[in-house]
Amino acid sequence: MISVEDARSRILAALAAAPAETVPLAQGWSRVLARPVISRVTQPPADVSAMDGYAVRTPDAVAGASLAVIGSAPAGHPFAGEVGPGEAVRIFTGAILPPGADAILLQEDAEAAEGRVRVQETVQQGRWIRRRGLDFATGAELLPAGRRLTARDIGLAAAANHAWLAVHRTPRIGILATGDEIALPGDPIPPGGIVSSNAHALAALVRAAGGDPLVLPIAPDDRQAIAEAAVAARACDLLVTTGGASVGDHDLVQAALGPQGFALDFWQIAMRPGKPLIWGRLGATPVLGLPGNPVSALVCAVQFLVPAIARLSGQPGGPPRAIRALAGAPLAENDRRFDHLRASLVPGEDGQMLATPFPLQDSSMLQVLARAEALILRAPHAPALPRGAPVEVIPLGDLGI
Amino acid sequence: MISVEDARSRILAALAAAPAETVPLAQGWSRVLARPVISRVTQPPADVSAMDGYAVRTPDAVAGASLAVIGSAPAGHPFAGEVGPGEAVRIFTGAILPPGADAILLQEDAEAAEGRVRVQETVQQGRWIRRRGLDFATGAELLPAGRRLTARDIGLAAAANHAWLAVHRTPRIGILATGDEIALPGDPIPPGGIVSSNAHALAALVRAAGGDPLVLPIAPDDRQAIAEAAVAARACDLLVTTGGASVGDHDLVQAALGPQGFALDFWQIAMRPGKPLIWGRLGATPVLGLPGNPVSALVCAVQFLVPAIARLSGQPGGPPRAIRALAGAPLAENDRRFDHLRASLVPGEDGQMLATPFPLQDSSMLQVLARAEALILRAPHAPALPRGAPVEVIPLGDLGI
Repeated sequence: MISVEDARSRILAALAAAPAETVPLAQGWSRVLARPVISRVTQPPADVSAMDGYAVRTPDAVAGASLAVIGSAPAGHPFAGEVGPGEAVRIFTGAILPPGADAILLQEDAEAAEGRVRVQETVQQGRWIRRRGLDFATGAELLPAGRRLTARDIGLAAAANHAWLAVHRTPRIGILATGDEIALPGDPIPPGGIVSSNAHALAALVRAAGGDPLVLPIAPDDRQAIAEAAVAARACDLLVTTGGASVGDHDLVQAALGPQGFALDFWQIAMRPGKPLIWGRLGATPVLGLPGNPVSALVCAVQFLVPAIARLSGQPGGPPRAIRALAGAPLAENDRRFDHLRASLVPGEDGQMLATPFPLQDSSMLQVLARAEALILRAPHAPALPRGAPVEVIPLGDLGI
Repeated sequence: MISVEDARSRILAALAAAPAETVPLAQGWSRVLARPVISRVTQPPADVSAMDGYAVRTPDAVAGASLAVIGSAPAGHPFAGEVGPGEAVRIFTGAILPPGADAILLQEDAEAAEGRVRVQETVQQGRWIRRRGLDFATGAELLPAGRRLTARDIGLAAAANHAWLAVHRTPRIGILATGDEIALPGDPIPPGGIVSSNAHALAALVRAAGGDPLVLPIAPDDRQAIAEAAVAARACDLLVTTGGASVGDHDLVQAALGPQGFALDFWQIAMRPGKPLIWGRLGATPVLGLPGNPVSALVCAVQFLVPAIARLSGQPGGPPRAIRALAGAPLAENDRRFDHLRASLVPGEDGQMLATPFPLQDSSMLQVLARAEALILRAPHAPALPRGAPVEVIPLGDLGI
């Protein structure tokens, strides 16, 4: 058996970022930059007012003075002239400071009447002025390659005058569910069969992780059918299979894919749920074989598929983000397999998060998994812990998973 | 001035969930259920084996015994006969337990040869059998209305035999940026003007929050232009404007929309950044007027627009999710305005998160906002705090914002 960390490292080492494509800024959200965003403008482009008020000369604008208002400078309409002694220009937030002015008299500190303004509070030189380039200057690297773009990043790239972005192509993830016993929802269920849940759960997880899922038709447990479906996956950046990875007599995925040029690694991972994992390559396409059990498949997907999609998307990939919480119940000593306890996650009395494992942890229980807000991580041979002890948890809801 | 909480409550009270639509299961991820998902099947559909091994009768399967293997039960292919005394059936994980059998002899505890199997460990009655309905039964409510569907939920709905889901329509959010001084990225920038960043940042934020953005052409500061654009927004569930909400002479949004049947609330919110906010209704369409300053617009969107989209999507909406962190630097006493300090957020030595405000908090600095991982929340009149004191923060990255 190999460890979760080893398996993930070997998977990540075999993957590379998808090549770049150009997308409109408006489609850039949540994509990963392939090239940095370098500013094409300076922001603000000149010294501007930070407030609504009057652009004035500091020596003039003492309490009690009266200044002649010689014009107006709304944002986007710079005042054409200059502010001379005894003069003021009405100005608005974001508007360029007219030549001659070196301070802003706030609107609330001014009394305007008949083309003049009376100063009620003495101004401070330079106050309420935003200097040219305060936010950023032309040529500055604002967003590095490899960054997954937030809404704020999109705003920043827009402000830097980019209508287009170079991002990594969204990785296309083929999903192949295998098994005689499974039927698509709504389709006739064979005797002794069940409704297929893995393919669509994994497709949603692929979306949540930033990939583009391609759900292949279910392959019955038949070598030819599996091989044909695998051929269809050659256009994918990664093929994910579910089922066929146990150690029983019906492990057809491995046997079926051999003649297609399948180079196989088959691993027993020291983890629960989800022991057996296939890793390999079908021609140029990497193949990740997940267990057929839906809970095992999803937990393995959190540990291996989400990082794989991150790497294919142009990010480093790595362990799923874990946070510190407190155990809401005593935890038993762990055996040699890395465990993932399905747990609720609620704020405790002192503001720390409380993670409480559900009483039933059977790996067939999809309803329990769906209700879990977190997976409590239990390292191999972790000691028993009392209620209230700190534990690491993966918060599932944050991931949309 | 009214409080952030008051403003949010009044906005939420004026909004209702968008009506339901039917979508394929495969498009259900991240949508909000309009009707509960009730199971149409029982899972497992019968008692099934939890492991690979042999279905046996407990009295027979004692260490040292030899049993006749009379057939095989792969998953999806139930064994047609019955297990009699002295007999065993080869069985695989998930396969239905044949009549007569009441225990599973694990594969690793068995030695098979020439049509017989030798028992190496005495079995326990009922062990390694998953009972019919262990996961869920026909008629059970598996997912409630109002739930935003995770990948696991999609798996559960599939397993419950649903090919279609009733979800709330994705709310369509019109976005109208106003201002003479702004230009779309790549377009010619007017003298003294800047590149428009609000519309596309807000569009990305709308996507992150689960809405469908409709970016309207920029409206110059001209009553007719704003009014025309507003008409185009009548097909929206909510119209968001940016700019035109200050207290200067150029507050055209209010004036322009009046003749269009605009019922206005104009609020000064006791918050920083982002004091002025328009709230109202244009005919049947609610209107949220955000400040023109990009940082103010985005912070207001986190506090008001994200909850509004949640409500329109069929969820209750409420304050953005905040977590507990420790102040990474001393914090000054706050004035009467609810403050949002742009901050980094990193795990501290003891596993708690450390939120450290950036030194420059000027509300014009979009780059600082983009680099922030969190907003530190400072209630009105919050006292000064030393480094290490607990603070509430909104983690922005989790939201894709």
